[in-house]
Amino acid sequence: MFTGTQSWAFSTSPVLLSGSAVGGPMEAQGPLASSFDLLFDDLWMEQTSYENAQQRLMEEASALAIQKAHIFDEQVDFFISGDLINQMTPTNFAASTLQIPFLGTFNACATSMESVALAAAIIEASGANYILTGSSSHFSSAERQYRFPNEYGSQKPGTSQTTVTGAGCAMISKEGNGPIIKRATIGKIIDLGITDPFNMGAAMAPAAADTIITHLHDFQLPITYYDAVVTGDLGKVGRDICIQLLNDVKVSIAPNQFLDAGLMVYGPDQQVFAGGSGSACSAVVSFGHMLEQLQAKKVNRVLFVATGVLHSPLSIQQQKTMPAIAHAVAIENGSDE
Amino acid sequence: MFTGTQSWAFSTSPVLLSGSAVGGPMEAQGPLASSFDLLFDDLWMEQTSYENAQQRLMEEASALAIQKAHIFDEQVDFFISGDLINQMTPTNFAASTLQIPFLGTFNACATSMESVALAAAIIEASGANYILTGSSSHFSSAERQYRFPNEYGSQKPGTSQTTVTGAGCAMISKEGNGPIIKRATIGKIIDLGITDPFNMGAAMAPAAADTIITHLHDFQLPITYYDAVVTGDLGKVGRDICIQLLNDVKVSIAPNQFLDAGLMVYGPDQQVFAGGSGSACSAVVSFGHMLEQLQAKKVNRVLFVATGVLHSPLSIQQQKTMPAIAHAVAIENGSDE
Repeated sequence: MFTGTQSWAFSTSPVLLSGSAVGGPMEAQGPLASSFDLLFDDLWMEQTSYENAQQRLMEEASALAIQKAHIFDEQVDFFISGDLINQMTPTNFAASTLQIPFLGTFNACATSMESVALAAAIIEASGANYILTGSSSHFSSAERQYRFPNEYGSQKPGTSQTTVTGAGCAMISKEGNGPIIKRATIGKIIDLGITDPFNMGAAMAPAAADTIITHLHDFQLPITYYDAVVTGDLGKVGRDICIQLLNDVKVSIAPNQFLDAGLMVYGPDQQVFAGGSGSACSAVVSFGHMLEQLQAKKVNRVLFVATGVLHSPLSIQQQKTMPAIAHAVAIENGSDE
Repeated sequence: MFTGTQSWAFSTSPVLLSGSAVGGPMEAQGPLASSFDLLFDDLWMEQTSYENAQQRLMEEASALAIQKAHIFDEQVDFFISGDLINQMTPTNFAASTLQIPFLGTFNACATSMESVALAAAIIEASGANYILTGSSSHFSSAERQYRFPNEYGSQKPGTSQTTVTGAGCAMISKEGNGPIIKRATIGKIIDLGITDPFNMGAAMAPAAADTIITHLHDFQLPITYYDAVVTGDLGKVGRDICIQLLNDVKVSIAPNQFLDAGLMVYGPDQQVFAGGSGSACSAVVSFGHMLEQLQAKKVNRVLFVATGVLHSPLSIQQQKTMPAIAHAVAIENGSDE
């Protein structure tokens, strides 16, 4: 399994058996609305707090992924998941509802692919038959925690991003029909000194570039091997920087090959500044729309690169920089298909 | 590897190659002081904030575990770690310093054994040669986040616990000399409705009991198989409840067989209420004192059960209950020794 310097090649062909995507009102107006399994028309989702609403998103996405895998709840061996909220309360309470043995993960918005990589490694070790993974975020719970209460009406610069309200889950299995998890590259923390919490794209772009370059090097693959590279939430600012950083080391990525979930989930007319963000951003696009594209054979080899900024309000108060991380997971249709 | 309902048996004998424990002034006065590699005599550790001090604890413990493993920094393949602070900033900034590919984990005070279990699973899948795991906590950063600033002088009930200032790390390796990681049981979230944030022991005890019972059942082992069961931070209150819950299902654990890190790290004359707590509590005792005991063959079969409360100030404000979780890892001296 260990390959190169920081990668895993999976020889037992863990399967991405099913995926689910649940969203909120902004996501319902976006171009990928038809790829969501469930869309709520308000941010409260019949709950008494936004954090409770986020818990519900995770519970709904979990139930859908289990249902679409055509298995019983009791067959799911482990739940590997995390979110952005302090102490991950939405995920923890969802795990309490699910009653599946739980491994909490946290790499901010890179949590979705961290969890898939760990799930595939556990299956490679014959440690499970079915592992449910996923992540969630909520616009209002993230704003409250990381920025300012919306009621303040504070201004945001164009480099800021909009947290996706949603949850995406993936069922990773030892056997079954579906795209195969082929490879993973675990990122290092990259910190180039960005301190502006409203410019997460600039903080995450070097981490994304570093992980993509390492991945290609570890597996001796050209970037053209992949039909698509799907980053998690670089947004307009981060995607441009990432393309430049890749070009600097002679990795020429075609514009239509480089997708970013943060730019896919919302349309050009939606007021989202530089694009979507949040740990659900990568999850809903990867386990919703992109899984559909893989299942329909519209793409056959996709490198998913979830990116996360590991800052906090406290670290910003202390004028700390915003370290970032990116994990890459390669998912492909089987060669016999 | 998959065994029973929620456990792993490791057939490739992952090794606990080295461990480290770093502490603060309270820990320096405790009965395990001689098992610490480094003790600071104040809570600031030459830093400008308690969170920065906690970062330093993690960096020192990491360097010590690498040094004691007699390997170079560059030989460490992955770093699996987490802490209690919002967004895990101390761990994230330490991971940035370390520059080792990083997988963030979060199960509150159960994070130490979650990380060891995941590291052993990755090694079982041939995914690494050396994995550094660990966790940290700091009395003052935890008080600030979870409770009240100390300057308020607010009263605490006797059921409350004292967060350990420290960090403990373990180097898990594919080969080498040291105790072997034999088994792990991944816990479910158990929530029996405790809402008092000053009574974490009562919230965690049912999770500890559930994981211990499941572990014994999954491996068809009697409790007497283990020389010691070392829970993470149940404290006086939680330990008593856990013993009762085990007795209820006819698991009779001998008093001297049931150790709790929260009761080991501080002496009877120290003002710590019901005992120590925090994600470092299990880490410093397990990877410091207990590893020494294993290496000296004073014990040969130990079941480490790290326990965590997955609450947050926010969930308490909303009068949510405190879900808890426990993960168990069995570490043994080889039969040829």
